[in-house]
Amino acid sequence: MIIDVHGHFTQVPPELDAYRGRQIMQLSRPRGRGDAGISDDNLREHLQPHVTQTRERGVDRIIWGPRAAFMGHEFGPEWISRFWTEINNDLIARTVEMYPDLFLPAFQLPQSPGVAPAGCIPEVERCVAMGFVSCQINPDPSGGAAPLSPSLGDKSWYPLYEKLCEYDIVGLIHAANTLNPHLHMNGAHYVNTDVAAVIELTTSTVFKDFPDLKIVIPHGGGGIPFHWNRMRAIHTESRLEPFEDVVRNLYFDLSTYDPESIELTIKKMGADNVVYASEMWGSAKSVDPLTGRKFDDNLHMVTDIDWLTDDDRYKILEGNARKLYSRAKF
Amino acid sequence: MIIDVHGHFTQVPPELDAYRGRQIMQLSRPRGRGDAGISDDNLREHLQPHVTQTRERGVDRIIWGPRAAFMGHEFGPEWISRFWTEINNDLIARTVEMYPDLFLPAFQLPQSPGVAPAGCIPEVERCVAMGFVSCQINPDPSGGAAPLSPSLGDKSWYPLYEKLCEYDIVGLIHAANTLNPHLHMNGAHYVNTDVAAVIELTTSTVFKDFPDLKIVIPHGGGGIPFHWNRMRAIHTESRLEPFEDVVRNLYFDLSTYDPESIELTIKKMGADNVVYASEMWGSAKSVDPLTGRKFDDNLHMVTDIDWLTDDDRYKILEGNARKLYSRAKF
Repeated sequence: MIIDVHGHFTQVPPELDAYRGRQIMQLSRPRGRGDAGISDDNLREHLQPHVTQTRERGVDRIIWGPRAAFMGHEFGPEWISRFWTEINNDLIARTVEMYPDLFLPAFQLPQSPGVAPAGCIPEVERCVAMGFVSCQINPDPSGGAAPLSPSLGDKSWYPLYEKLCEYDIVGLIHAANTLNPHLHMNGAHYVNTDVAAVIELTTSTVFKDFPDLKIVIPHGGGGIPFHWNRMRAIHTESRLEPFEDVVRNLYFDLSTYDPESIELTIKKMGADNVVYASEMWGSAKSVDPLTGRKFDDNLHMVTDIDWLTDDDRYKILEGNARKLYSRAKF
Repeated sequence: MIIDVHGHFTQVPPELDAYRGRQIMQLSRPRGRGDAGISDDNLREHLQPHVTQTRERGVDRIIWGPRAAFMGHEFGPEWISRFWTEINNDLIARTVEMYPDLFLPAFQLPQSPGVAPAGCIPEVERCVAMGFVSCQINPDPSGGAAPLSPSLGDKSWYPLYEKLCEYDIVGLIHAANTLNPHLHMNGAHYVNTDVAAVIELTTSTVFKDFPDLKIVIPHGGGGIPFHWNRMRAIHTESRLEPFEDVVRNLYFDLSTYDPESIELTIKKMGADNVVYASEMWGSAKSVDPLTGRKFDDNLHMVTDIDWLTDDDRYKILEGNARKLYSRAKF
């Protein structure tokens, strides 16, 4: 079985963003949650390309969450994020009912700038009850603007971590939008947020306080394998626990698109702490003019590695994910 | 000859930060530029560890600039940045007078949040007259806080680019401090700023408008070689010039501390677009407990690569730098 731990429902019906447009136009006079009005037929039609491509790639299960930038945490007051989050999570739940053998659902959190993560707990409870197995954690709900977001090591995150541990829900670190004009969203903000998250978590006491917390860092850990000894040097200089030990509390997903980067991630983190991922459909959904193949069609970059043992290959493609997503029915 | 293109005078006399302390304490009643009061003997004593280590490593010339975070652009009004910058650049000029055969000077810019880069031009002129060959460009003088900084592709940068081209001064992209509590400075903010800079420059018209502009991205291009195909995918999706073409308007320095990362940077960028660097003394000045060697003692990671031709090795260690820093007397 091949499990891809990082998918987003990006090809959504336009009715979803129309809902968001109405939210924004009614900012000063909220009318309650309302509904996006997406029919089953409409939803199925927009879902189809995802289903087809996932199956064509030979992927058997995909951890499946809402769009990332469109989590839209940086915008508006708390109520707007709450309603928007519920609408998105309910939509994901409906897609999973349609394809229960393919999608394993991940939810977004109703985060807002300057609002403590504890406010997300009711949505965690609601989504767990609906069968979700993972959630997308945005370390920077402000999108790089005021009020600036606290470190992931800050105690304000602890009520959320506690709840994730209680239900054994996996947190996928994933940025949403940025308001910073010198940060390209897909090119810089996403991977930069991964790098920031790794060092905030590894230099904090989070894993001492929550040894069972399960956190996945996408995009090959944002490039941390490339900066491995830089991180080791910082830990050495600051007399912290060795980086190479504490970082293995994390899992890095392999949604990078160069064979060298995938190999480097596996070499540095070890086969027990990496999980296969494509990030379908994300930043790399176009066709590489040099190969004629989509950039994110990266499964062969794992299966082609000749120095991997069968056992390690199994862990990366299936075994680690089975352990991580304990709430999933595989 | 071995040329290291990325050094910082980090072991400064305490009198320098005492000057900064006085600046801040007199924020509401500035008394003019004043002086840090650092004697030649004091300066020579603090410079000595840098000189000794650089020579011991077999480095013949080092591009030598002020501390990075302590450029302090994010703090205070325009005048405070101007005076502080002049004090720092004058100090660098004095160290170069002491060791003219070792140090090739780089200056900091008097950047300030929300102030157009054109305001830096008088300091460019002043430093060129003093014999400087390079400068440190901070793409994010706000340090991630309000007012947010424009993209490096924004036209507000053009007067500075024009001036750098006029004098053939190399710009080393380097972040200063960050005010964002979820960004570790050495671990995240520095390398993240590199990633952001690469994509802002490659997705903009900067190199069409300034084909002679010389820009170095430190820390192995911030990890861009790891995300190479991610960047190619974004360029393909956005119908931009191929990433692998436009990125070669830039030079990546090799101040990373893993042999794999140095090799990956050379492979992806090619020997014509990488330059040797250690970032002495920066984030990696501690001793690696696994090797007993300092992390930033990375010259052997280049010289040991067995697949490099002699010509390529020459370019990386000397030849490219000679071309880049045309104002330097080697």
